[in-house]
Amino acid sequence: MQIPGPSAVPDRILKAIGQQTIDHRGPDFAQVGLKALEGMKTIFKTEQHVFIFPSSGTGAWEAALVNSCSPGDKLLMFETGHFASLWNKMARRIGLEPEFLEGDWRGGAEPDRIEARLREDKAHEIKAVCVVHNETSTGSVSPIAEVRKAIDAAGHPALLMVDSISGLASIDFRFDEWGVDVCVSGSQKGLMLPPGLSFNAVSARALEHSKSVTMPRSYWDWQDMVVPNQTGYFPYTPGTNLLYGLNEAIDMLHEEGLDNVFARHARHGAATRAAVRAWGLETLCMRQGQESGVLTAVLMPYGHSADAFRATTLKHYDISLGNGLSKVADKVFRIGHLGDFNDLMLMATLSGVEMGLAQAGVPYHSGGAQAAMEHLKETTEERLAAE
Amino acid sequence: MQIPGPSAVPDRILKAIGQQTIDHRGPDFAQVGLKALEGMKTIFKTEQHVFIFPSSGTGAWEAALVNSCSPGDKLLMFETGHFASLWNKMARRIGLEPEFLEGDWRGGAEPDRIEARLREDKAHEIKAVCVVHNETSTGSVSPIAEVRKAIDAAGHPALLMVDSISGLASIDFRFDEWGVDVCVSGSQKGLMLPPGLSFNAVSARALEHSKSVTMPRSYWDWQDMVVPNQTGYFPYTPGTNLLYGLNEAIDMLHEEGLDNVFARHARHGAATRAAVRAWGLETLCMRQGQESGVLTAVLMPYGHSADAFRATTLKHYDISLGNGLSKVADKVFRIGHLGDFNDLMLMATLSGVEMGLAQAGVPYHSGGAQAAMEHLKETTEERLAAE
Amino acid sequence: MQIPGPSAVPDRILKAIGQQTIDHRGPDFAQVGLKALEGMKTIFKTEQHVFIFPSSGTGAWEAALVNSCSPGDKLLMFETGHFASLWNKMARRIGLEPEFLEGDWRGGAEPDRIEARLREDKAHEIKAVCVVHNETSTGSVSPIAEVRKAIDAAGHPALLMVDSISGLASIDFRFDEWGVDVCVSGSQKGLMLPPGLSFNAVSARALEHSKSVTMPRSYWDWQDMVVPNQTGYFPYTPGTNLLYGLNEAIDMLHEEGLDNVFARHARHGAATRAAVRAWGLETLCMRQGQESGVLTAVLMPYGHSADAFRATTLKHYDISLGNGLSKVADKVFRIGHLGDFNDLMLMATLSGVEMGLAQAGVPYHSGGAQAAMEHLKETTEERLAAE
Amino acid sequence: MQIPGPSAVPDRILKAIGQQTIDHRGPDFAQVGLKALEGMKTIFKTEQHVFIFPSSGTGAWEAALVNSCSPGDKLLMFETGHFASLWNKMARRIGLEPEFLEGDWRGGAEPDRIEARLREDKAHEIKAVCVVHNETSTGSVSPIAEVRKAIDAAGHPALLMVDSISGLASIDFRFDEWGVDVCVSGSQKGLMLPPGLSFNAVSARALEHSKSVTMPRSYWDWQDMVVPNQTGYFPYTPGTNLLYGLNEAIDMLHEEGLDNVFARHARHGAATRAAVRAWGLETLCMRQGQESGVLTAVLMPYGHSADAFRATTLKHYDISLGNGLSKVADKVFRIGHLGDFNDLMLMATLSGVEMGLAQAGVPYHSGGAQAAMEHLKETTEERLAAE
Repeated sequence: MQIPGPSAVPDRILKAIGQQTIDHRGPDFAQVGLKALEGMKTIFKTEQHVFIFPSSGTGAWEAALVNSCSPGDKLLMFETGHFASLWNKMARRIGLEPEFLEGDWRGGAEPDRIEARLREDKAHEIKAVCVVHNETSTGSVSPIAEVRKAIDAAGHPALLMVDSISGLASIDFRFDEWGVDVCVSGSQKGLMLPPGLSFNAVSARALEHSKSVTMPRSYWDWQDMVVPNQTGYFPYTPGTNLLYGLNEAIDMLHEEGLDNVFARHARHGAATRAAVRAWGLETLCMRQGQESGVLTAVLMPYGHSADAFRATTLKHYDISLGNGLSKVADKVFRIGHLGDFNDLMLMATLSGVEMGLAQAGVPYHSGGAQAAMEHLKETTEERLAAE
Repeated sequence: MQIPGPSAVPDRILKAIGQQTIDHRGPDFAQVGLKALEGMKTIFKTEQHVFIFPSSGTGAWEAALVNSCSPGDKLLMFETGHFASLWNKMARRIGLEPEFLEGDWRGGAEPDRIEARLREDKAHEIKAVCVVHNETSTGSVSPIAEVRKAIDAAGHPALLMVDSISGLASIDFRFDEWGVDVCVSGSQKGLMLPPGLSFNAVSARALEHSKSVTMPRSYWDWQDMVVPNQTGYFPYTPGTNLLYGLNEAIDMLHEEGLDNVFARHARHGAATRAAVRAWGLETLCMRQGQESGVLTAVLMPYGHSADAFRATTLKHYDISLGNGLSKVADKVFRIGHLGDFNDLMLMATLSGVEMGLAQAGVPYHSGGAQAAMEHLKETTEERLAAE
Repeated sequence: MQIPGPSAVPDRILKAIGQQTIDHRGPDFAQVGLKALEGMKTIFKTEQHVFIFPSSGTGAWEAALVNSCSPGDKLLMFETGHFASLWNKMARRIGLEPEFLEGDWRGGAEPDRIEARLREDKAHEIKAVCVVHNETSTGSVSPIAEVRKAIDAAGHPALLMVDSISGLASIDFRFDEWGVDVCVSGSQKGLMLPPGLSFNAVSARALEHSKSVTMPRSYWDWQDMVVPNQTGYFPYTPGTNLLYGLNEAIDMLHEEGLDNVFARHARHGAATRAAVRAWGLETLCMRQGQESGVLTAVLMPYGHSADAFRATTLKHYDISLGNGLSKVADKVFRIGHLGDFNDLMLMATLSGVEMGLAQAGVPYHSGGAQAAMEHLKETTEERLAAE
Repeated sequence: MQIPGPSAVPDRILKAIGQQTIDHRGPDFAQVGLKALEGMKTIFKTEQHVFIFPSSGTGAWEAALVNSCSPGDKLLMFETGHFASLWNKMARRIGLEPEFLEGDWRGGAEPDRIEARLREDKAHEIKAVCVVHNETSTGSVSPIAEVRKAIDAAGHPALLMVDSISGLASIDFRFDEWGVDVCVSGSQKGLMLPPGLSFNAVSARALEHSKSVTMPRSYWDWQDMVVPNQTGYFPYTPGTNLLYGLNEAIDMLHEEGLDNVFARHARHGAATRAAVRAWGLETLCMRQGQESGVLTAVLMPYGHSADAFRATTLKHYDISLGNGLSKVADKVFRIGHLGDFNDLMLMATLSGVEMGLAQAGVPYHSGGAQAAMEHLKETTEERLAAE
């Protein structure tokens, strides 16, 4: 699988998940729960709060909203791509009033436009700014620390809410240092798990704020979690077996070192872009420095169907590429390089893409895999030195 | 584990769960999704709708309520025990107005009292009747078909909502035949899975009704599920690996035969009660015919702590019994005989309980395990004949 | 499975075996090999040599003989039961001349008869005394330390060769302290592994002796093993995945403590015999102090078929009892209580046997399981104190 | 792992091996045993006999010799490489008299030289001709059918014994059609299992012959196997869990189709050689048409250490190449393309080799991976058509 998630689940994690379920009210569960809750703080780089839900990432979006808002609250959201659009749609649907700053899908959120909008909001009606960290539909990364600075520069009290469902544990993220208030994430990307667990990292300020907001909620309520979580338990049945896997994933990430994980993905992103350039193709993300280390979305030459190309590649080389979503449907294909991925898996992937381009009759220049190989070769010493 | 759930997960199911995660948007997923969705209809015995959520059973309670109610709606709930009380509490919390018919925790819901209350409700303000099928805190079963008759006899249009989280796939349940409108269930009891999936079986009438109700909802919304479910897909990331396990569980249940599964649990319940009587102890459920085949709650002799007894039994015989919850805390212990359980596992359990009673200094008569053995011996021919 | 082996393989060990195979010539293999080789010394209680073969236990019998003998060598063997007879047959077949001291199958080897025979052998033509430690066909244990004393008392230089295929890691065995020269064992009994690995523990004296013996050999040759084993490697492809499992098994045995493992089996043997007595039946082993903690062979009442009883028990209670072998075919059934076995599994087993006796119409007294339970109850404090 | 075996074990097979061990004397075992025994006949392409040993391949070499020879028998063996030399050494060691036709390690066995030697043996003292099918140390394949013709042309009655430990189930092999008498194989190469099972395919003629030969044997004796094998059982404890894996492997091979498996390996061999040529390097096998589809041995440029190169490649790219053995130690490295291997895994491997050559400072031309990719691209249509 070279789709941009769910990532291939390492054998270590599959084995952990396959262990016998234990009683989530029994004494042995405490250490499972505590390890997961404390471990996720190290992944988010926070000393504040992390809540774990037995749900998909979509549930964690909802949890973030219903714990931070009262019916009718205004939000400022930024259209980085398909997933930002879905989050915006959800907010509207549950009775909030999001304003959606239009974007071109070719880069991350723009702090200057956010600052400008907040400055206009003298009455502080906007309760939260919502930004997607790694936009999985485009392969662009939003500058989260800059968004925080923009909010502060505008002197605005809005909470900063971030979706890092596909960024966490793959690309640099620093909850406390960057001043994030709520971060939403999920299990099936950088954490290398099957889907089924989701997360809210929550600042002390956001947690306090949640006490006064009035969106109806029960399953998602942070407040119910606080006390049982202190001893490693949950207010209702948790996803025990996925928690086993989560604890294994946290160990694996720390064994490699989070910074090494980030560097590995960044290097693979750069090698992939070298291949794309050599093929004479264009990446969807066009803002330098905002290209994702998690995936690379590639624009097809005009008149060629990305989906036809993906079907050919799957049939001939058993490689499953990500499809273009909504506005860019059939116009881009996406190469995932996330999770437990190494140099040779990247070479396998890019070789498969190159052979697929030939097979599908897409105009391209030969030598993309070779160009990626050159990049990997040149940077291998540096990589080993860092580790 | 002899606690009343999560049940021990059979090896076949653990292996299924440990398979590599596939793309939930890819072509191979369709058969996984369709098998699960169609298979669950056979378990609920319905030809109407089943929705599957990546969440715990608590989430499915919430899903049932937010898809069936508008803010401020009145509900009629029946206090069968701890779990009925929690569902009542959740309803209140998200802005509904449940009326809670008081119960003594020693049997199932009482259709005549429900009928009487509905007859009083001339204005049809009550929108739904909510009943727990198998009350895990007490080991009592509510007569669901009789509750339906009571509603009809009262000529009342209220929906019939049932929690069968711990009853489904262990004791007789017939969604269509009994006229249930919404049934809530979860993965970690009769379905023998780890926790993390939950279900709503929904009648055509309830699904139609959900279009007009106004509780805010997104993650839980049935309407979003209908179209993608038709081809085996979901509107957001499903719990792929638990779905693998679910499909295996459905196969296992049908290989044994649902009616054989029900008979097995009923027989084990009867053998357990024979042991309890021989020990000179009393079961919490005291209404004949409503004793659960899933678990048996046993009252401790006056002045003896159930929790001290449970701790002794765990320490000496490595057997984990269920604790008394809320009103019956420390007063009862619960023997689970659910899931993938056979005669010898029951004998192991009851031998452990009997040795534990001795070890903990609880006054009892020897011979309970022997009495259960007699029951099993006498009914073994009948069991084989039925299979 | 209540047959006397292969024992049920614990999940921990199955998972270990299911790990990816590594290169047995690569650097990572060394620690796997060394852990296994050193670990097995702690299980045999020796500081001399242990060799591991990718073969069944039968292969290790052959290895012991071909490394210790020259063609035509005389051996003294003792007929404790079926397995002693098979070993005798093998020796004869590969060109050795075993003398077989006749036994009645109702106890272990008899040191006084061995001593008497050795005293007669003034010319020291007998090169080795071969004794089965735990005779799986009868449930009797030979007094190995006494056999050593008998050899010494006779002033005879014969090697002491012991088959502890089913005794090792279940009942007391001390290679160095008891002065054993060669001990044969296998993976599928006390070590709780699938079959496929076998062992020779070898004294320095036996290893030196092997240099001069002339049985043709290559695969089984100890001398080829010595040097590569020092660094954890083997002269040919080892059974890598079973070695993973072996290392897990060694850890499990030490976590529980070998002496606790022995005490557990002994206690289960005693409880089983209490049940047999209460049923009014007789054990095959009739020499007190030589009853096995690994399995109990039970004589059927005259005129009743053990195999018919076993078939009934399997059909009705899904419990698989061991059959009588060769001389005692259809006359005994064998109850295994080996490997990863606890009090409640024993109660399940004995309850199944008792229900099976009823079902099969075998004359017996009720109350055997109850009698075993009494024994377990009375000794539980003692057990916990020892651990 | 890109070493030439043990091959990476597919997840399906690891899962099969991780199933609970069953009683090898019980009724359920029969179908496991029969499936394995019958299934292996389809892999060897024989309707005669296949025997399965719980041992490594080295054991099966010994089994072949001791069942076919009497002490002092003369054999004719051919030095194709390291493994032929080891087999020769074993034969000498157990008391046979092999004559070893010297080879240059750069191709398969030479039928004309074999024929010439047999013609000289007027007295028919040579009892068997022993040839390695796929020589793992060199990557050359012997023309087995031609060797048969050579024996027949010489009018010589010698048995034809073949080692196909690393060839079976990867490259074309036809036991009956080619007139082989004994074929030795093992589990850890083309069968994709962990090591621990080995095989002898045996012609009716060889089986009859074995009755009269006098090498002492017990564990390896074919005659003991014949009767129990007919009903799926074995004369001693078989390697139950590896048999589970074997049956899964047989299914996988037939699902793909044996001929497709052979074509896949041949195509990967050709692509690998295209890469080697483009790098300006030389393969060890220099006889056209005898290059192995299982592995490719590559000669290092003069003055460069193959082992240093392998170490660099392992460190930088986590790819484990096979080492040169004995005569070609440090002079060749071996690229494995055996077992469950596809186009992209080959591209990953060859990219890793190419990056490793650069990193290790070995003189080479860039573009080998690219050349292999061209070969794969050009032949992909043909491959799909055949399947």
